[in-house]
Amino acid sequence: MTRNEFKSLIEKKEPILLDGASGTEFQKLGMPIGVCPEKWVLENADAVTMVQRKYVEAGSNIIYAPTFGANRFKLGDYGLEDKVVEMNLALVQVTQNATKGEALVAGNLSPTGEQIYPLGDRVLEEFIDVYKEQVKALVQGGVDLFVIETMMSLQEARAALIAVKESCDLPVMVSMTYDESGVTLYGTDPLTALITLQNLGADAVGINCSTGPEKMIPIVEKIKPHAKVPIFIKPNAGLPKMIDGTAVYDMKSDTFASYCKELIGVGANIIGGCCGTTPEYIKELKDELAGLKTILPNTKQGSCISSERKTVVIDLDNETRIVGERINPTGKKQLQAELREGSLDEVTRFALEQIEMGATILDVNVGMNGIDEKEMMVRVIQHLSRLVDVPLCIDSSHIDVIEAALRVYPGRALVNSISLEEVKIKELLPIVAKYGAMFVLLPLSDKGLPKNIEEKKEIIQTVLEKAKAFNYQREDIVVDGLVTTVATNALAAKETLEVIRFCKEDLEMPTIVGLSNISFGLPNRSYLNSAFLTMAIASGLTMAIANPSSELLMMAMHSSDVLQNKDPGSMRYIRKSSEQQEEQ
Amino acid sequence: MTRNEFKSLIEKKEPILLDGASGTEFQKLGMPIGVCPEKWVLENADAVTMVQRKYVEAGSNIIYAPTFGANRFKLGDYGLEDKVVEMNLALVQVTQNATKGEALVAGNLSPTGEQIYPLGDRVLEEFIDVYKEQVKALVQGGVDLFVIETMMSLQEARAALIAVKESCDLPVMVSMTYDESGVTLYGTDPLTALITLQNLGADAVGINCSTGPEKMIPIVEKIKPHAKVPIFIKPNAGLPKMIDGTAVYDMKSDTFASYCKELIGVGANIIGGCCGTTPEYIKELKDELAGLKTILPNTKQGSCISSERKTVVIDLDNETRIVGERINPTGKKQLQAELREGSLDEVTRFALEQIEMGATILDVNVGMNGIDEKEMMVRVIQHLSRLVDVPLCIDSSHIDVIEAALRVYPGRALVNSISLEEVKIKELLPIVAKYGAMFVLLPLSDKGLPKNIEEKKEIIQTVLEKAKAFNYQREDIVVDGLVTTVATNALAAKETLEVIRFCKEDLEMPTIVGLSNISFGLPNRSYLNSAFLTMAIASGLTMAIANPSSELLMMAMHSSDVLQNKDPGSMRYIRKSSEQQEEQ
Ligand SMILES: [Zn+2]
Ligand SMILES: [Zn+2]
Ligand SMILES: [Zn+2]
Repeated sequence: MTRNEFKSLIEKKEPILLDGASGTEFQKLGMPIGVCPEKWVLENADAVTMVQRKYVEAGSNIIYAPTFGANRFKLGDYGLEDKVVEMNLALVQVTQNATKGEALVAGNLSPTGEQIYPLGDRVLEEFIDVYKEQVKALVQGGVDLFVIETMMSLQEARAALIAVKESCDLPVMVSMTYDESGVTLYGTDPLTALITLQNLGADAVGINCSTGPEKMIPIVEKIKPHAKVPIFIKPNAGLPKMIDGTAVYDMKSDTFASYCKELIGVGANIIGGCCGTTPEYIKELKDELAGLKTILPNTKQGSCISSERKTVVIDLDNETRIVGERINPTGKKQLQAELREGSLDEVTRFALEQIEMGATILDVNVGMNGIDEKEMMVRVIQHLSRLVDVPLCIDSSHIDVIEAALRVYPGRALVNSISLEEVKIKELLPIVAKYGAMFVLLPLSDKGLPKNIEEKKEIIQTVLEKAKAFNYQREDIVVDGLVTTVATNALAAKETLEVIRFCKEDLEMPTIVGLSNISFGLPNRSYLNSAFLTMAIASGLTMAIANPSSELLMMAMHSSDVLQNKDPGSMRYIRKSSEQQEEQ
Repeated sequence: MTRNEFKSLIEKKEPILLDGASGTEFQKLGMPIGVCPEKWVLENADAVTMVQRKYVEAGSNIIYAPTFGANRFKLGDYGLEDKVVEMNLALVQVTQNATKGEALVAGNLSPTGEQIYPLGDRVLEEFIDVYKEQVKALVQGGVDLFVIETMMSLQEARAALIAVKESCDLPVMVSMTYDESGVTLYGTDPLTALITLQNLGADAVGINCSTGPEKMIPIVEKIKPHAKVPIFIKPNAGLPKMIDGTAVYDMKSDTFASYCKELIGVGANIIGGCCGTTPEYIKELKDELAGLKTILPNTKQGSCISSERKTVVIDLDNETRIVGERINPTGKKQLQAELREGSLDEVTRFALEQIEMGATILDVNVGMNGIDEKEMMVRVIQHLSRLVDVPLCIDSSHIDVIEAALRVYPGRALVNSISLEEVKIKELLPIVAKYGAMFVLLPLSDKGLPKNIEEKKEIIQTVLEKAKAFNYQREDIVVDGLVTTVATNALAAKETLEVIRFCKEDLEMPTIVGLSNISFGLPNRSYLNSAFLTMAIASGLTMAIANPSSELLMMAMHSSDVLQNKDPGSMRYIRKSSEQQEEQ
């Protein structure tokens, strides 16, 4: 099945049915606790085929092959690490025997049971390789598509997704498992998973296991506005109750189906069951959803970036975002010395301080002499991704550094920056697009700085066209206002304000400025920077790269948001004001 | 001659010729030093008529009647205070005998020799009465128009002008005499005289005596762009040299005429000679100017207000103006107590401090219980007009208070404010128009605050129409943005910014806001006020009523002016920054 065929299937607006539980059904068939499930399946292939056949007959359009733990790490727990290819091929066959071509077969990738560096010892690349081995076998076995499911680590989900994307062109669905507090074991929330995964190339993003269907309704409602891909839901038959040491799922099939109907109503496109559900549940579901139409994915997701644990929406009409500029060794002697010695203490301090002062995104630039920038960038990103939960802006003039950073960054990054220079368009843009990152569009070309505002606007439009070929939309690109100092060009501020207005009003694109450039060469710069930020916000600015430790600047930003009706009830302004009071 | 006939005469674009010197000619005829010139003229009427006849024959279109000192105060020096009417009638006859209807006869009003309160004991009203007595006699004698000349006190010139305007409808020309430094004895500069007098109803404004014609060229160049009335010039034949105790003017008539030609080239419409010139000079002038066309007065003067010694141009594309708000007893216990006791110490302190901090206009409001507001307003205006040289904004809710203030204010005031309320349009507008003051248009009506921005715009347009009937133009009116707090209306700032943009871009009108209203009810107000000022300046604001002692606010203003290219070379910003440094 091609990705386009998958898309066409969704566009029919008929709810697509997945299968129900495997694990709990296998236990009913007698699978003991503690065995390797994949080995047991192969030893009980006919019985498993029969269960899966019942799902097909109940109406499932997609059956998950029982390859859940069939990766080298997991099989290694049972001394089966050398059987990956062989087992996956055989496991696919079990399902294909059940579907007889009447339902699609999804190769199932699931957690490896290992933790990724820096939590564990193994680096991301090892996980990608492990998944790739399984993916290749499943492709060879003839699966129609992939499902990555029951993921708790967003980074591990990324590893599996990258493995699929780099191995084949089959559609791939990814679902995460959330606990009752609404986040994964590693702290990822559903919106953050959606943003990260749909931009990395997932064809559907979903939730499986976790809870009963009723708890998923508000989650789907919340993430649907940002979903550019179908949402799929595979809930348990309610929350488990432990009876005699066994998890019992006691939501009846009619109740289950009725909640699932509501899930379709709020935006789920694909639906099935997880633990505790049976072919009866899928049959009930099919009847309940008959004739129902699904809500198609959106064409836009909003300007969203994410860390592993948080999404920041860069809203044209909402909160102005400060991108903390301090993690950048240029002109910072102590930071340079520490980085040379391999210490990240100053990076830690800058990160925490900037967030404390109000930065909601951190720019990361480690370009300096005497260090391996790529290695350091990867280290800093790994470090900051654990330390803080704000999204990062990856800032480098070297394409290989940005590529390495994007690969290891566990969310949807912002990349700073892509201009109309040939090397950026030809080499950097495809890489940034591969990882689905947002990027800062710097309106200059190989000819240098644009001579006037018309040329600036032309460059913006041209880069936009080039990026559209990589499926970028306006909302995915932040235009840099390209600030120069008023000390040498009296019209510098007015020209940048016009670019901001043009992007906001005519293109509906977010904008960013490097504030401090405006006042270069003049005294008392913080006053000029603050006034410029205020004017820029009034012209429609969405983000500023700045040092948030200037109270003058931050109060100007908060005041401007109040005045531009970007801070409902002046809540952020009042909170910031009272924080200030406490400090005094 | 009607004022319209005078205007038509100017519109022919032919240079209008005045006469030459009287005094120095009479001295040649034997008039001794120390006598009453008017008495001497009447005793030597035939000789004087003959001199004036020569001017007519040389080409003068207007002959000044020899009524220079024929006012009660001046004649009083010779015990002739009861002969005012009789002498003026006779003196006009002397000139009429010379002109024989071939030239116009101008009744001549000149300094009384007395100083006006608070410099002297006599109040303005006495001077108006003295001039009125002379004006009525001259009208009875049949003068064609009036000239008020050789004035050194702008306030005395105003007294004479008010006297003419309140006595007849004849055209009236007013010229001041400047010393070599370019200001009058009382410190008035030519632009300030022009702005004050043309708005008070002068039909031509000029310079006489003072210096030779060459020094007047740059002055005419400078004031011409603001002149809505013809400019007239009556220079001496060079600077006097004292020879044997007598002033000798030695610029030759051809040199004189050649400079006068240049004066026509830079914008003079009416020209003649003062001390040292003779009928020969006028003859030479007539030949030199033959065929030359004058530059007509402008239809616009710019948004200018003045004190007695300074003009402030409220330029849409230049320096933002801070109107100091502190001279207002509302909420100020000490100021209230002092005003009740009749002390102006606090007023003095507020005035000086606000100017020191950057206010270029001062709002004056003395409305409070327990004092006679009208009396206090007149006192404060008299006091401040001597103390400081910034123009004043007359701020009262009582029409009689504003009227008394405008009469005594020695420049072109700004009045705060006129709304669409019936009492303001019917009663206040005609008074404000009589004194030619600029006014603040407050966009509210008898129905109260406008419900939305469209209603606000409608009120602005309606008041504008009403004001046009009184010869007001857009440039003469400053629209108040009518600021309310964002605490109760989240769109308050955006709506006011739109009014400012509308006035600047669509109407090309100056705007003013009372800054502090925006933040009422919120903490940390100075940040909000400063950010709002910055946004307002970016939207086109020209003035703000504020307390300039807030450094945050003033630096926001100076920064905004730099960013909006309203501070060429960042000169004011850099100066303000270095002042700050010095204070620290
Ligand atoms: Zn489950
Ligand atoms: Zn670390
Ligand atoms: Zn003279």
